[in-house]
Amino acid sequence: MKSVVMGASGYAGAELLRILAFHPDIDVASAAASSQAGRSVAELYPSLLPHYGEMAFTDVDSVVNNLANGVEAADVVFLALPHGLSQTIVPRIYEKVGLIVDLSADFRLKDIERYRAWYLAEHTAPSYLCKAVYGLPELTRAELKGARLVAAAGCYVTCSTLALLPLVSAELIERDSIIIDAASGVSGAGRSLKHNYLFTEVEENFSAYGLKHHRHTPEIEQNLRAKVLFTPHLLPTNRGILATTYSRPTKKFMDAAGDFEPERIGSEVLLAEMARAYSEEPFVFVTDFPPSIKSTLGSNYAMVYGTYDERTNTVITVSVLDNLVKGASGQAVQCANIALGLPEDTGLGALGLHP
Amino acid sequence: MKSVVMGASGYAGAELLRILAFHPDIDVASAAASSQAGRSVAELYPSLLPHYGEMAFTDVDSVVNNLANGVEAADVVFLALPHGLSQTIVPRIYEKVGLIVDLSADFRLKDIERYRAWYLAEHTAPSYLCKAVYGLPELTRAELKGARLVAAAGCYVTCSTLALLPLVSAELIERDSIIIDAASGVSGAGRSLKHNYLFTEVEENFSAYGLKHHRHTPEIEQNLRAKVLFTPHLLPTNRGILATTYSRPTKKFMDAAGDFEPERIGSEVLLAEMARAYSEEPFVFVTDFPPSIKSTLGSNYAMVYGTYDERTNTVITVSVLDNLVKGASGQAVQCANIALGLPEDTGLGALGLHP
Amino acid sequence: MKSVVMGASGYAGAELLRILAFHPDIDVASAAASSQAGRSVAELYPSLLPHYGEMAFTDVDSVVNNLANGVEAADVVFLALPHGLSQTIVPRIYEKVGLIVDLSADFRLKDIERYRAWYLAEHTAPSYLCKAVYGLPELTRAELKGARLVAAAGCYVTCSTLALLPLVSAELIERDSIIIDAASGVSGAGRSLKHNYLFTEVEENFSAYGLKHHRHTPEIEQNLRAKVLFTPHLLPTNRGILATTYSRPTKKFMDAAGDFEPERIGSEVLLAEMARAYSEEPFVFVTDFPPSIKSTLGSNYAMVYGTYDERTNTVITVSVLDNLVKGASGQAVQCANIALGLPEDTGLGALGLHP
Amino acid sequence: MKSVVMGASGYAGAELLRILAFHPDIDVASAAASSQAGRSVAELYPSLLPHYGEMAFTDVDSVVNNLANGVEAADVVFLALPHGLSQTIVPRIYEKVGLIVDLSADFRLKDIERYRAWYLAEHTAPSYLCKAVYGLPELTRAELKGARLVAAAGCYVTCSTLALLPLVSAELIERDSIIIDAASGVSGAGRSLKHNYLFTEVEENFSAYGLKHHRHTPEIEQNLRAKVLFTPHLLPTNRGILATTYSRPTKKFMDAAGDFEPERIGSEVLLAEMARAYSEEPFVFVTDFPPSIKSTLGSNYAMVYGTYDERTNTVITVSVLDNLVKGASGQAVQCANIALGLPEDTGLGALGLHP
Repeated sequence: MKSVVMGASGYAGAELLRILAFHPDIDVASAAASSQAGRSVAELYPSLLPHYGEMAFTDVDSVVNNLANGVEAADVVFLALPHGLSQTIVPRIYEKVGLIVDLSADFRLKDIERYRAWYLAEHTAPSYLCKAVYGLPELTRAELKGARLVAAAGCYVTCSTLALLPLVSAELIERDSIIIDAASGVSGAGRSLKHNYLFTEVEENFSAYGLKHHRHTPEIEQNLRAKVLFTPHLLPTNRGILATTYSRPTKKFMDAAGDFEPERIGSEVLLAEMARAYSEEPFVFVTDFPPSIKSTLGSNYAMVYGTYDERTNTVITVSVLDNLVKGASGQAVQCANIALGLPEDTGLGALGLHP
Repeated sequence: MKSVVMGASGYAGAELLRILAFHPDIDVASAAASSQAGRSVAELYPSLLPHYGEMAFTDVDSVVNNLANGVEAADVVFLALPHGLSQTIVPRIYEKVGLIVDLSADFRLKDIERYRAWYLAEHTAPSYLCKAVYGLPELTRAELKGARLVAAAGCYVTCSTLALLPLVSAELIERDSIIIDAASGVSGAGRSLKHNYLFTEVEENFSAYGLKHHRHTPEIEQNLRAKVLFTPHLLPTNRGILATTYSRPTKKFMDAAGDFEPERIGSEVLLAEMARAYSEEPFVFVTDFPPSIKSTLGSNYAMVYGTYDERTNTVITVSVLDNLVKGASGQAVQCANIALGLPEDTGLGALGLHP
Repeated sequence: MKSVVMGASGYAGAELLRILAFHPDIDVASAAASSQAGRSVAELYPSLLPHYGEMAFTDVDSVVNNLANGVEAADVVFLALPHGLSQTIVPRIYEKVGLIVDLSADFRLKDIERYRAWYLAEHTAPSYLCKAVYGLPELTRAELKGARLVAAAGCYVTCSTLALLPLVSAELIERDSIIIDAASGVSGAGRSLKHNYLFTEVEENFSAYGLKHHRHTPEIEQNLRAKVLFTPHLLPTNRGILATTYSRPTKKFMDAAGDFEPERIGSEVLLAEMARAYSEEPFVFVTDFPPSIKSTLGSNYAMVYGTYDERTNTVITVSVLDNLVKGASGQAVQCANIALGLPEDTGLGALGLHP
Repeated sequence: MKSVVMGASGYAGAELLRILAFHPDIDVASAAASSQAGRSVAELYPSLLPHYGEMAFTDVDSVVNNLANGVEAADVVFLALPHGLSQTIVPRIYEKVGLIVDLSADFRLKDIERYRAWYLAEHTAPSYLCKAVYGLPELTRAELKGARLVAAAGCYVTCSTLALLPLVSAELIERDSIIIDAASGVSGAGRSLKHNYLFTEVEENFSAYGLKHHRHTPEIEQNLRAKVLFTPHLLPTNRGILATTYSRPTKKFMDAAGDFEPERIGSEVLLAEMARAYSEEPFVFVTDFPPSIKSTLGSNYAMVYGTYDERTNTVITVSVLDNLVKGASGQAVQCANIALGLPEDTGLGALGLHP
């Protein structure tokens, strides 16, 4: 099948090229990136040289026009563009291409009011919100089959949701007071040219940012149907997201944990529920220790863990993934595989690098 | 004045040597480190060569014997030894030296039961617990004056306490449900030779550890007279601690925040209380943004920040310091300065390195 | 085909497991590691959990005995053991298994005197030196076909040889005065538990080591039939080797470069010769800019570059690769593929991670 | 004394502020930075908050005008401006201020032709070239006394010169074929907003740059009166420069090394000559092992080492310093101290941070 990657010069776009290089069923016909149009892909990303030595970036507008006008065709279009651009492109190509997988936040929130409140802007293609299937296979696999427009889930969102969803679904934790304290490698900010992301500013540093108002908050709340306080931090790493969450156990949890050794039994209940939820999942693994981000470096796997602290009556979870793979481009390919009827793990089996 | 540094081959010990090199009133007469006795200080720490080119490590046992027998004298003895050793040394030299500043946890907890519960061992010198002054000048300055035995506060503890103490003291946050999510650079583990601390295991990594049972928990609780859930994480940095805390506002806070713009006013109330508390403090600065660890790299300063989230009704604080300076050796020198009647900031004025 | 990985708990061994996880023709039947025998592979390397969740490390001695006694069989045995052990194992299993690929230095040097001089020890299995095929496909592909014992080339050696071999072979540079200044990520030292390799010692650091006497020197000299001064440095990275070399141009080179614009023409001559040499190679790419280590991170590719400085009459080359892949485990699999008659790039196509 | 720092928002400028904060004799009256004029110093550099909490950046043009017009006065003006700006400022203020210390390359080269050839531009203030004293105290201390205009030596230049100068001066190495292979932390590029210096591009990376044409080359050649091939590399560290050099021993060296054990004796000759040259120097230390950059992190010290390889008949040196301190701002203050008649090490005694 023939694919187009738009926004191919950004990190998520380049990661799509990396992953698709060895996808047996999806070829990259065009790598569009307006700011780099005409430039060799391998010049910007020498790591892609062995596979994309002959490819140059195309222009996003031209490719969109060609797709809209039927001059070009594509089985799947990946949109890895800056915030807000997908809204302008999707309506133009939706009827012309087989599948659109959008990696931006444009079509993730189902509630237009929530979009307005958190993005401080009017959505310019609201009629497509209901057409878009939210792209988190562990949550929406059934709907993804045959989907035409996928809004792939965000990186922090995926990491947090995978840890907490089994627990809220099983009514083991309360939905009204979840705290998510998370940290991401710098690639989460994309290839943005800002002083904040200079090596000299990030190395040997660690900081909280986006306090109270990070836009992944409503997306997590939508997934969990819960109220969430989300605090991200910037790690001095290239990749990786780790989320540590704190929540209150429910009465149902306390009953299951019992009176004798509630900390031990309660922790087992949490792990058992996670294990049950993910027993058939190809990319989510439950660990019996708090996982670390390096365990998933460069891979599409996520790892989740949970434990109960009796002393403060708190459920703690720790979860990790690679923000550019399971948190972005790997997830987009996984969603595309499902939507296109391919085996879900096609092209995604690589294990994490260590060290 | 003449000082002895015991445990001088560890990172806290070497940091004491670094700081004391330009302390105008305290000289290092001996750097004791059993495992390295006889070896040149500069061989192990070439950074110390310019000042300690002629010094070799001495043997801890010999120096303790000499101090105990009166063969050697010292105005101040810094103990930067592994857990549990200070208990065996303090009783032997307490009457012989002017001042002992212990950087370990041996004399920090006042409640012998708490010590037993968290350290899973009997304290071998319990009668010295009440003699020891807890070494956090911002909390115990008055008692430190003229002290003979100081139990310098722990690194995570200092960082967390400095952020939260003004708020619990002013009754702005509840004491029963404080969550502290913190991260430390690897030097917090000392110079321990464990696979976990190899470069290849830490670089591009981030992980939670010591969940629910980290021994700094009871020390934070002792300082705040509160119940605390504390989760530390390991950062891929040499130095630095950042603590993000979550707590519930009190009725008093809500009254002060008012009904009109509680988020804005409440946040101002927090910063104002912090500013009031630290207005005379030489080493604690209140920032109007979440501080980052690099702002205090290599310095004895701490920075604290607080804000209120109306949506989830949570008070958030962020605080930072260098775990080896304000979190260990700088604090020890600050305590010694106070105990010895010297200006508190003597030898400690250096600003943080950036970048 | 059935393989055994010995030394599977080290970084090269674990990298073999990572690569072989998706090799379609070679299965890992046993991962032997004496110090970890009985322990779960995924406990030590959580990144391997998705594929090796059920596997535990076996014992090296037992596996060797079983192979020697015919109790077990293997089509290929990878030896990723510490220096000196392969010499003791190869004679015992050579006749019993289809192929041995040794990643150590034990069988790389053909000259027993050189081995003695650089390794300061007697070789205990000298009769196998002539049986061993040196494992650098770009140099010894023909001999590798059907080989029974392969001595895979070293990491620094591969990086340096790939840059310089085309130039010495084409007689463009003199063989008597080659300087190689190289740097490696910390995984080059394996999972050694030494203070030197602690995060706190390596991060924000850079140093030269093994001056004049690094054991990769004679191996480079053997490949190039040249005299080489080799100086390695330790980089604060997990992976990656970069070699910058300096050599004297030959008369043949000067003639080719001409009088008019020798710097430009000469540089073109170098790149053209490299391009010619590697035109059919699947894993070596010639770049027209000095390559950086990140371009090959996690991949089996190497990149090489050369240029001529007229002012000082020096040929400079820069080359890079991932020390654990093309410098160790990827190369071992590439050699095995050739020896076993498989397509050479089987299981090795992954592109480098960026960022 | 009253100082002005121009270019105070760059890393060298901020480093001057950091160092001068505790200089007992030089106060910072104004921190000028055109792009940041009006902004709080501590907002850009929170690490400077404890000392510069009240200071805002001033405007370079205004300050220059005020100095030129006599509206403001300054005992010493530090210029830490981008390349080329100092040439336009020095002529305007030279007669008005006590001392100018320029950290740029504008006045370092004495030969106007060399300037033109390497900087590809006409010098706009050539008459000041002879007025400027080159600022490398170990080479030009005598001339620095009472100087009015100092051109502080470059970072790579200082590191390389300190290693090689004693050896060329003593005629132990040949001047016609010196190779310098060096690496620098990212702060050497200043606070430049370029993709190359993003964390995601530098972390886990290492690369050569500026091959054959780096502008520090003629400056090193001027200091050593030698022909030099200089190849810099970019390290994934904040700070630090390490230079490894290769040169040919002279007949004088060979005579001194003798026939019996030339490698051992020759190496001793090198170290002895370095030790002799620096016996009175406060900031240069000779080590008997190859020094690493972390040994000088945040300090004004440099460390140098040399050894002789008999096998390839090559003299090797390794030297290190912190590019922002001894390679820039610390050196500028050292030069100012000398020029102003202060003790040379005033404000510069801090030891390096480890870890």
